Amino acid sequence: MADTTRHCLFFNWEKRNIGRIDVDIATVIGLLFGLGCIIWSIMQSEGGQVFINIPAMFITIGGMTASTFIHFSIKQVMSLLSVMKKTFVYKAQSEQTVIQKMVNYTAINRRDGALALEKQLQTAGDSFLIMALRMVIDGQKEDAIDDQLGLEIHYLQERHAEGKKMLEFMGNAAPAWGMIGTLIGLIQMLQSLDDPSNIGVGMATALITTFYGSFMANLIFLPLAGKLAIRSKKEALIRQMITEGTISLVKGESPTAVRERMQTFLSVSNREELKPKI
Amino acid sequence: MADTTRHCLFFNWEKRNIGRIDVDIATVIGLLFGLGCIIWSIMQSEGGQVFINIPAMFITIGGMTASTFIHFSIKQVMSLLSVMKKTFVYKAQSEQTVIQKMVNYTAINRRDGALALEKQLQTAGDSFLIMALRMVIDGQKEDAIDDQLGLEIHYLQERHAEGKKMLEFMGNAAPAWGMIGTLIGLIQMLQSLDDPSNIGVGMATALITTFYGSFMANLIFLPLAGKLAIRSKKEALIRQMITEGTISLVKGESPTAVRERMQTFLSVSNREELKPKI
Amino acid sequence: MADTTRHCLFFNWEKRNIGRIDVDIATVIGLLFGLGCIIWSIMQSEGGQVFINIPAMFITIGGMTASTFIHFSIKQVMSLLSVMKKTFVYKAQSEQTVIQKMVNYTAINRRDGALALEKQLQTAGDSFLIMALRMVIDGQKEDAIDDQLGLEIHYLQERHAEGKKMLEFMGNAAPAWGMIGTLIGLIQMLQSLDDPSNIGVGMATALITTFYGSFMANLIFLPLAGKLAIRSKKEALIRQMITEGTISLVKGESPTAVRERMQTFLSVSNREELKPKI
Amino acid sequence: MADTTRHCLFFNWEKRNIGRIDVDIATVIGLLFGLGCIIWSIMQSEGGQVFINIPAMFITIGGMTASTFIHFSIKQVMSLLSVMKKTFVYKAQSEQTVIQKMVNYTAINRRDGALALEKQLQTAGDSFLIMALRMVIDGQKEDAIDDQLGLEIHYLQERHAEGKKMLEFMGNAAPAWGMIGTLIGLIQMLQSLDDPSNIGVGMATALITTFYGSFMANLIFLPLAGKLAIRSKKEALIRQMITEGTISLVKGESPTAVRERMQTFLSVSNREELKPKI
Amino acid sequence: MADTTRHCLFFNWEKRNIGRIDVDIATVIGLLFGLGCIIWSIMQSEGGQVFINIPAMFITIGGMTASTFIHFSIKQVMSLLSVMKKTFVYKAQSEQTVIQKMVNYTAINRRDGALALEKQLQTAGDSFLIMALRMVIDGQKEDAIDDQLGLEIHYLQERHAEGKKMLEFMGNAAPAWGMIGTLIGLIQMLQSLDDPSNIGVGMATALITTFYGSFMANLIFLPLAGKLAIRSKKEALIRQMITEGTISLVKGESPTAVRERMQTFLSVSNREELKPKI
Repeated sequence: MADTTRHCLFFNWEKRNIGRIDVDIATVIGLLFGLGCIIWSIMQSEGGQVFINIPAMFITIGGMTASTFIHFSIKQVMSLLSVMKKTFVYKAQSEQTVIQKMVNYTAINRRDGALALEKQLQTAGDSFLIMALRMVIDGQKEDAIDDQLGLEIHYLQERHAEGKKMLEFMGNAAPAWGMIGTLIGLIQMLQSLDDPSNIGVGMATALITTFYGSFMANLIFLPLAGKLAIRSKKEALIRQMITEGTISLVKGESPTAVRERMQTFLSVSNREELKPKI
Repeated sequence: MADTTRHCLFFNWEKRNIGRIDVDIATVIGLLFGLGCIIWSIMQSEGGQVFINIPAMFITIGGMTASTFIHFSIKQVMSLLSVMKKTFVYKAQSEQTVIQKMVNYTAINRRDGALALEKQLQTAGDSFLIMALRMVIDGQKEDAIDDQLGLEIHYLQERHAEGKKMLEFMGNAAPAWGMIGTLIGLIQMLQSLDDPSNIGVGMATALITTFYGSFMANLIFLPLAGKLAIRSKKEALIRQMITEGTISLVKGESPTAVRERMQTFLSVSNREELKPKI
Repeated sequence: MADTTRHCLFFNWEKRNIGRIDVDIATVIGLLFGLGCIIWSIMQSEGGQVFINIPAMFITIGGMTASTFIHFSIKQVMSLLSVMKKTFVYKAQSEQTVIQKMVNYTAINRRDGALALEKQLQTAGDSFLIMALRMVIDGQKEDAIDDQLGLEIHYLQERHAEGKKMLEFMGNAAPAWGMIGTLIGLIQMLQSLDDPSNIGVGMATALITTFYGSFMANLIFLPLAGKLAIRSKKEALIRQMITEGTISLVKGESPTAVRERMQTFLSVSNREELKPKI
Repeated sequence: MADTTRHCLFFNWEKRNIGRIDVDIATVIGLLFGLGCIIWSIMQSEGGQVFINIPAMFITIGGMTASTFIHFSIKQVMSLLSVMKKTFVYKAQSEQTVIQKMVNYTAINRRDGALALEKQLQTAGDSFLIMALRMVIDGQKEDAIDDQLGLEIHYLQERHAEGKKMLEFMGNAAPAWGMIGTLIGLIQMLQSLDDPSNIGVGMATALITTFYGSFMANLIFLPLAGKLAIRSKKEALIRQMITEGTISLVKGESPTAVRERMQTFLSVSNREELKPKI
Repeated sequence: MADTTRHCLFFNWEKRNIGRIDVDIATVIGLLFGLGCIIWSIMQSEGGQVFINIPAMFITIGGMTASTFIHFSIKQVMSLLSVMKKTFVYKAQSEQTVIQKMVNYTAINRRDGALALEKQLQTAGDSFLIMALRMVIDGQKEDAIDDQLGLEIHYLQERHAEGKKMLEFMGNAAPAWGMIGTLIGLIQMLQSLDDPSNIGVGMATALITTFYGSFMANLIFLPLAGKLAIRSKKEALIRQMITEGTISLVKGESPTAVRERMQTFLSVSNREELKPKI
């Protein structure tokens, strides 16, 4: 489970967060390497400054942004950045850590009662886990906990799915606006064919927007939409494990039973014999 | 839930409507910004008047309209404008407002009986809520109310889905007709190659229809289809909450039970402890 | 429900047909307007006769027809015309007319027995309604009637779905064959570049097939496929209502019960209090 | 049901086969007509021999074949021809023939017992029908027969679905390899622009592969995939009817019951009152 | 079932592996033949060295790799090679071999008890079969075995599905990056139109990346994704058969019952009367 990730402890924007924050270095490597390829490719011949064209950026990015605003609600557009963050950094919670925590909580619950879990809230380090513990401390029934946590997982997945849809829409809108920009450039260039020496430069400028659109779609928006789906799936899995563990805990099952129930979500090779450490 | 929206009280085309009417400023900003991008981009070089070409508009918009008439029934085409209106203005009914209303109605129903709800019809401000209250006042059974309101939600969603399909069809037909226009222009231009100085202008004119088609599809039709789906989903959610609340009310449950039942549709962070205010 | 349609009583190709035959004027207007747009657009400049090119028509329409024959069975190809007819003319049967008829039949059945329905067969005016009545007169059981009529509705929808698939296939094949024609034209033109004055004419001729393919797909085949689906859905709905009404009639329910059962398919605003008129 | 087909009795490659073998003349007419259109179109101007280009055929067909080998298993590729045969010739088994046979077998079974069906195996003329009869003669139970025959139908449909997928893959691979060929041709041509008189011929040659790819996809592979699906559906229907009939026979139901059960798969207009002829 | 495969006994990278390792010669033939077509086609005219262009390879392959890193997690990217291996070599386990083994194990289990299966672990030769046997030896219940093995099959299929998705993504990203490379090349070439003799060479170089992208997608990534799905389906089938057989064994059924239960996954023509050989 140990993704090749790099710790990043000095990057701690959520106070009560105890868990490590990890950078998704696959995303970072991919972006840097992709940009490197393009820049290196442009550097191969002279005159690379034609590739930096502010008006072309403006029509491509501006048009794409305009379409996105029309398609989605302001609330969704605003949440895009926080959703995209998930493709760069994420909380490094391995399944084993979560199982260990739940096993401990079960042991505490059995020994000292549900109220003793109150002290654990500060170190739980995951808002979903905290919500689950709170429901246990409040003495809620299994069904209510199951419904409530299931609903929260559903909303999380829906929010991620909306983010993915937005990134995919932008991945389609960017080349479309690139083509609109190229059409504008071509029409303008074709009108003034008197001086043939300008044809090349005019056409090159017209093609810049298509270049921007293609490269943004294929390097940024479409791959990020994919990464978001992968992160979302993993996060939902962890939350389903927490839900199962909490229900098992509330039923008064033993730490071993809690561990086994949570491990049904894992492949055999990922299972470990975890014992309560309290 | 408070979408960043702007009140618009002087815009009140439905008399009995008490609720606020809000403009979807994301749609408005997007459209204005997108148009601004295109116009600014055209203004960058001289001779922008070539982009205003009435015959090109006629073939692109006319052809697209013709295809839409053939595809859909006249009744559907006629309802397009009223459906598109939803992407610009909508009734600002937050989930909390609706829950508050239903909680009040439940309290009234318990204290004074169903007939006392008659007076509330005038201030209900939402045709679906009024229909639900009428069924309660008429003394209909839970099942009948559930079936009836469920059916109305189904028809609403179907109407919206048809509107979405129409906008998506137009978003595909516009670039197709743009290409048909460009083919006509190219064929005409190629026939008279005697005067090479006309090639550029002829080709520029031919490309205008493709430009119109692309830009209408990507700035207007495809994004509006998306916004319609988002509005439709939210409206259906509110109506499902009203249905649940009405059934709970008819069953004689307490205002608290009504509130909790309606809040199962909301994420925990959106729930509030609403009490009847009567 | 009253679609904006035009009566067409002198157009009566099915003898026993009592119901009005209506022209789908949306289809007619769309086709005429679309053709008008294209012709007007061609007339804008001289030399419009290049757009009438018999060999180009032959390769585009011929190739598309050939592909359609290979894809579908002869029986399906033969039924295409009769299925396409539905997109131009249809029987003007409103839901209310059908409900009124079934309400009357129920009253007759209750007063005079099932055999008295025999006389109504001549004026029923709809082959599906006649089949339903025949089963009632023959004294068949509810289940048998439900199975049988359900199966007929299924076959109707399958036939329409096949027609839609055929039109969509033609809508994809037409531009593909247009491109094949253009490739043939281009290859021939490129071979004889000796006389540059012929390039333009050769290329114009080559593009004609692409123009034919695009315009047939976007004005005729794809929109007609959509209209067929809409007509199919409405016809299936009416038949489902007839099925429900017939079962209710056979069960010996009252005319009011029959009406209410058939009206469950309608939105509240489309319901009317129909009484038997016999 | 009598498709416009032509008998072909001298074409009898399966010995025990008693049923007629029919040619699907829609496929044959379509292919000949489509080829005719293309050849006629090429003959319109001189120099048609450029369209016969062995290297271009080699890259397009060869590349497509290579991709197909990589995508599918050798076993599947080998079965392609036998699956494609279904789009040209098929056994002329009408639903009525099959019902008549099963009705006869039921009568024999009732009069002389299951073993008397042994003699019918030779004239059954359909491997699936023979398998069904064998199971009856072996005295297998209804459930076993249902499971077994259902499984065979499932495998038949899966084999056809794989064949369809293969044809569709080839229909996508052919134009893709056509484009690869054109790219190779263009790059070679562009490298030697010294002699402008060669540009036309070089470009014409480069375009030939795209022409081959388009025409093979749109005349052969994509339409044949469609025809295969139609044949598969009909064959599966007949086999489902045989399964139903066999189960009815094993249950000891009357010939009339067997007929009615098999006819539930047919529209009313296709039903006939068949009596046992033995 | 005996795919046309070639033994490859000297290719034995997994120690405990007793089963034969076979090369999927369809994949190998396809790749070699496809490459042969392209190389032969390039050799047809002089100057083939233009097709080997390191910077063009770098932008196409590099960009595609960058997008893949952003889309997927590092763990998934790392597993790509091991998943792709499945499209070239696979363990030659026919259904009959597996059935024979399970029949033997059942006989041993009945004669000597579950612990006697311990000795068979070394010769089982398939990690899934070994896992199943271990659970039998450990005395686990049917339900636990069913759940556990079903979960492992689920994870296997998910891993393969992810590999397929990755290959399909690369098959879409390769031509997209080819086009980005071509756009860069075109823009650079158009800027320096002073020397017309360079136009051809510049354009040829620009097109190389599109050629690389098309050919990698259509010869390698898209077909390999298809082959992976076919291998995955077959492997899952074998594992489902093992699961069924193991459950039957644990229930104490006879070798014949085990064989019949496993053979329900096979078409009649693939079934054999296997007896225990111990």
